[in-house]
Amino acid sequence: MELSQVYAPVRPDLIKVESQLKSVSKVDFPRLAELLSYTLSGGKGIRPALTLLSGKLHHYNLDLLLPMATAVELMHNATLVHDDVIDNSPIRRGRPTINSLWGEDRAVLLGDYLFAKAGEFAAATDNLRVIRLFSQTLQIISSGELAQTFDAFKLEQTRHHYLKRISSKTASLFSLATESGAILSQAPEESTGILREYGYNLGIAFQIVDDVLDFTGTEKEMGKPTGSDLAQGTLTLPAMLLLEHHPKDNPVEELFNNQDMPEGEKQKAVKRAIELVRSSGVVKQCHELASDYCHKACHRLKFLPDNPSRQALKDLADLVISRKK
Amino acid sequence: MELSQVYAPVRPDLIKVESQLKSVSKVDFPRLAELLSYTLSGGKGIRPALTLLSGKLHHYNLDLLLPMATAVELMHNATLVHDDVIDNSPIRRGRPTINSLWGEDRAVLLGDYLFAKAGEFAAATDNLRVIRLFSQTLQIISSGELAQTFDAFKLEQTRHHYLKRISSKTASLFSLATESGAILSQAPEESTGILREYGYNLGIAFQIVDDVLDFTGTEKEMGKPTGSDLAQGTLTLPAMLLLEHHPKDNPVEELFNNQDMPEGEKQKAVKRAIELVRSSGVVKQCHELASDYCHKACHRLKFLPDNPSRQALKDLADLVISRKK
Repeated sequence: MELSQVYAPVRPDLIKVESQLKSVSKVDFPRLAELLSYTLSGGKGIRPALTLLSGKLHHYNLDLLLPMATAVELMHNATLVHDDVIDNSPIRRGRPTINSLWGEDRAVLLGDYLFAKAGEFAAATDNLRVIRLFSQTLQIISSGELAQTFDAFKLEQTRHHYLKRISSKTASLFSLATESGAILSQAPEESTGILREYGYNLGIAFQIVDDVLDFTGTEKEMGKPTGSDLAQGTLTLPAMLLLEHHPKDNPVEELFNNQDMPEGEKQKAVKRAIELVRSSGVVKQCHELASDYCHKACHRLKFLPDNPSRQALKDLADLVISRKK
Repeated sequence: MELSQVYAPVRPDLIKVESQLKSVSKVDFPRLAELLSYTLSGGKGIRPALTLLSGKLHHYNLDLLLPMATAVELMHNATLVHDDVIDNSPIRRGRPTINSLWGEDRAVLLGDYLFAKAGEFAAATDNLRVIRLFSQTLQIISSGELAQTFDAFKLEQTRHHYLKRISSKTASLFSLATESGAILSQAPEESTGILREYGYNLGIAFQIVDDVLDFTGTEKEMGKPTGSDLAQGTLTLPAMLLLEHHPKDNPVEELFNNQDMPEGEKQKAVKRAIELVRSSGVVKQCHELASDYCHKACHRLKFLPDNPSRQALKDLADLVISRKK
């Protein structure tokens, strides 16, 4: 199954989200228009799909859901633009990043503009609860990323540490997407809770798989160099498990303890870590944990109205585990 | 007259804004708490004072005005933190900047967190019109700053260009401060318009004077090195007028056309520009223009209720011109 099939119940409205995103680029300042149009293309659209699918379970009101779906996608893009500045990343979605093409300064300001635009779309829902959730989510994301800067190149991180980090980084925005969809479609509180939990747990699973793909995917599939996290000093679950499996002679330890080793040596260590992850039980272990989270995400969906969108949320959870990019 | 005297009608409530700002630093993450507490101190408090004073002219409701006054100050601080990253500034308010102490990456994320926190306070007003204004203002500020990055070290900028730039950079936030104060105190539309215009024109005057002080102030008074704008390639009004007065042998032209000159030469050119501005009619010309904007700011205040806060707004306009830091 493909993402586009899963999105079927909301496909026409996802196209409207894309049009909204295109309209964001239409500003009376050609340089900004160029940056916006470049950065607002090529996403998977999973977050806006979550908002719309969640909304389809109760009183679907596109006038409110469309701006919110647009807001979550804009916020996602804003965080990516700033992340690439922080990580000094050259490539994203198979293309040069904003910072590498236009410089860090413009990337910082473009991110700010996108946050503001996202806020404007969130405000267009006229729903104060959703607007508050939106601001709180951005606080969680930015303080989580800030915490990560203090953890870079540190080996003594626990699994709890890792889960906390991906919870701020990814699960918070996934749960904003589903919870806001529920609120804006007047879901009863219990259903809102179920959808928030679904989004949160799906986000954790999504990020674990993402972190595995950073080792097992190809540069072409992932749109960025394999092993980027490790090279940037971010200890993800596969690398943690590798440390447990191979306490001696471990390329992760070597990399983190010798940050000033020559670039060629670094690349060799990253390559060795990639090979070790691929040939070990690490991938299976990660997928098992991700599956647990997908199970947690879905196990209370049965209390929600039975319709094609509920099925789509289940299918999406399966796809998150099996995806290759 | 001192700022603290002008603030008299709202002084007790400005102290409450300070408490709110202090409460923002109380987070369960010591590294973030440290950054927040460092960055949220030492401001003049002019923007929150504008919100409160504007609110005092109609139905003063502190429950709504206090979060908004806090929101504008947080947004101001967020933009300063990002500005210092962009300009690579080492010093602000007489202390090392966040980027110079903790690094660019953390400064970017701290700014994001502050924007989010500002958004949360704006949302606490429960007023959708104000929330929308808030997001739109952040768009104006960030796109204005983005435009400025394309203008750096360019000599062919007109006065219109300059006014547009300071309108986005400073006047937009000043007018958000006054307009939101008016809206949240249920001012009639006409009064809201008068207060918006007041904020806007006062902001323009404030920035013109700020740009003059960058030449005429001392490092101690200004809390940053004299001539910073010029050194960073920002053409402000005093430098523009200098180019008009001295079309030949002009240190501004020299600086902008030879960006790769040795650091020592650069400093000499900046110093020469400072001396020329101080000894020429440029300062007087700038002050005249700033006075015109202050006059524009105040000339319709007479249609607002006559109370100590209205007088304070007038006094503030006088102080903006005569201030030495």
